[in-house]
Amino acid sequence: MTDWGTPLTDMRKAAPLVQCMTNYVSMNIMANVLLAAGASPAMVHAEEEAAEFAGITSALAINIGTFSGHWLRAMEASARVAGERGIPWVLDPVAVGATSFRNQGSTALLKLSPTIIKGNASEVIALAGIGAGISAKGKGADAVHGVEAAIEPAIELARQSGAVVVATGPVDFVTDGSTHYRIANGHALMPKVTALGCALGGIMGAFAASGTPLLQGTVSALAYYGLAGELAAEGAEGPGSFALRFVDALSQIDAEMLSERAQVTSA
Amino acid sequence: MTDWGTPLTDMRKAAPLVQCMTNYVSMNIMANVLLAAGASPAMVHAEEEAAEFAGITSALAINIGTFSGHWLRAMEASARVAGERGIPWVLDPVAVGATSFRNQGSTALLKLSPTIIKGNASEVIALAGIGAGISAKGKGADAVHGVEAAIEPAIELARQSGAVVVATGPVDFVTDGSTHYRIANGHALMPKVTALGCALGGIMGAFAASGTPLLQGTVSALAYYGLAGELAAEGAEGPGSFALRFVDALSQIDAEMLSERAQVTSA
Amino acid sequence: MTDWGTPLTDMRKAAPLVQCMTNYVSMNIMANVLLAAGASPAMVHAEEEAAEFAGITSALAINIGTFSGHWLRAMEASARVAGERGIPWVLDPVAVGATSFRNQGSTALLKLSPTIIKGNASEVIALAGIGAGISAKGKGADAVHGVEAAIEPAIELARQSGAVVVATGPVDFVTDGSTHYRIANGHALMPKVTALGCALGGIMGAFAASGTPLLQGTVSALAYYGLAGELAAEGAEGPGSFALRFVDALSQIDAEMLSERAQVTSA
Repeated sequence: MTDWGTPLTDMRKAAPLVQCMTNYVSMNIMANVLLAAGASPAMVHAEEEAAEFAGITSALAINIGTFSGHWLRAMEASARVAGERGIPWVLDPVAVGATSFRNQGSTALLKLSPTIIKGNASEVIALAGIGAGISAKGKGADAVHGVEAAIEPAIELARQSGAVVVATGPVDFVTDGSTHYRIANGHALMPKVTALGCALGGIMGAFAASGTPLLQGTVSALAYYGLAGELAAEGAEGPGSFALRFVDALSQIDAEMLSERAQVTSA
Repeated sequence: MTDWGTPLTDMRKAAPLVQCMTNYVSMNIMANVLLAAGASPAMVHAEEEAAEFAGITSALAINIGTFSGHWLRAMEASARVAGERGIPWVLDPVAVGATSFRNQGSTALLKLSPTIIKGNASEVIALAGIGAGISAKGKGADAVHGVEAAIEPAIELARQSGAVVVATGPVDFVTDGSTHYRIANGHALMPKVTALGCALGGIMGAFAASGTPLLQGTVSALAYYGLAGELAAEGAEGPGSFALRFVDALSQIDAEMLSERAQVTSA
Repeated sequence: MTDWGTPLTDMRKAAPLVQCMTNYVSMNIMANVLLAAGASPAMVHAEEEAAEFAGITSALAINIGTFSGHWLRAMEASARVAGERGIPWVLDPVAVGATSFRNQGSTALLKLSPTIIKGNASEVIALAGIGAGISAKGKGADAVHGVEAAIEPAIELARQSGAVVVATGPVDFVTDGSTHYRIANGHALMPKVTALGCALGGIMGAFAASGTPLLQGTVSALAYYGLAGELAAEGAEGPGSFALRFVDALSQIDAEMLSERAQVTSA
């Protein structure tokens, strides 16, 4: 049986520098989530320096939530450096399917071989569909599809791209195209706090930069994150108190607790 | 007697998609406020896609807090689409009066016929004055005028623009130019948390997109927001704990509670 | 013995308008920190208006955390106006040393004679080294050097620039080039919350704009900030609850408490 707790210990030992090129809504909470977990975030995205910084970071997390033309150029340049250096980089194609610009930008980034692709069910379906020439329409950043509908597209996307693909939802689905996992940790209040999903992209980058095999680290990151949601919900009186308890929980969970409470099944 | 609780129920049933083009300071809290209330926020502002997204949203909230040239162009294009589609859009002319750029930008947006104009007393006075050729000087985003001084300018601005005009303060004033309301809900800690006023613009957009008559929905939104402030203040130890309790309260208030505690008077 | 409490009272009486040109990560918490302390923040950075706004503000805080070309131009223009008007302005050269763009931007801003320069040990060493033609490499925004290593560079930087120089860390060091102070207030959770250091730049600007002698006000600001960290840590369960308690504490501390608990030594 795989131990899902050890990757957390390894990540904390590595305390990896994670360069985040992420949307404005998520920057603060993403940095706080990474700090609470034990990683070292750096929010560096400007075209003037992002690619240079990609030369010294341990992982790169790219999120298109509020991107525009100059952001996309800096993302492409940084992803190329990450690829050349062989460091992990995560693509979070927020609300792909909602506008032409998101579809074009996601396609361009997908060609640069992300290490991990992470989206909700609607985003995974849309991104896989773009690859297959199928158009989809999302509703902002919130998923309108259930995770089950995203399983076949996720596997297909993993096979085409070579990335580990994650479809998040009440039960998360992770695949490298041949091996699949489901992670049942989590809580219904998580999507009620903006940008927790975005911040998860940074956490995945941190786990991927810490010496753990990629698929195992990604599954462990999802169980860790979902467990923090479960702990935060105990005693929360709404999404406001939940959000701060979630950050506290990220700092409190240790490997032993994670091993015991991870709800992972091969699928 | 008007029921001020039902518009909240209607908004939650509609769970409208609200496109927010808002300042960097407010994006996170505005998204969290909309999620806690039961709406679906989408922070989409880039010139490359904002107008296209305005084609699928249910409401649009425009806030000039940290705008610049390319933001203004995207705001104008999106407001035009909102106007063509007949969906509500809210203008929050933050700190109009403080710089020439804000005066020009607010004037340009005002010409595109916002559905609701929301500002503090100083902003309403400044915006009405610009229409009348009178110049005013604000002090950043904080009001230096009392609400009473904004009543005549608010009515005049409503008549000229055709919008519902809201002047926020310890007692809020709402007018469509002929019918006026005062809303006494609220708490002194609210202006001690940055961007709560900005986030209110999104809430007004959500209420306006839910089938409630515009004036009634706007008054209800203000009473709901102020009541959340009152509940949050109970047990708060400062603006930090107040802010999270405020988000919790938005999710806890229901129509019955709002009906009972709304402090609305015709004026 | 110097009274470190009175500058807080003076700052609250003045309630100075502080223009913040700061990184996206910090904008919200920086505004909330300034509001909780009793100042009046205005986040105004656009090239179209920043310099005009610098003409009416009482202090200016410049932070290069996520700057880019157009930000730098607006910062330079605003710093020039601040210099001409004789109002205090604070330079926070975040992660200087990490990229060429940061080194060039920091050098350009340093030439415009900041009133206060504030950084962690690594940033102070890097900035002093650039002046002396020595290159340094940082690791994002987190310090890799201890404060002791920054003392000589800080004194040298103060002498060369004419600014009060602050090196933050477990014990902060403040110097105007001839008189030096150490401030021992603070808590280990403070660097676990993103952008608290950035927000401190705004607090220093507020104290500097309130009639207190510059060095005394800066030391008092640091003691006040560190004391808020100490109070916040009591009962905090992690960085999430710490962050909100920190904002509460800023609003609760008064001059008497600060006088009693400030841990300042001449050095």
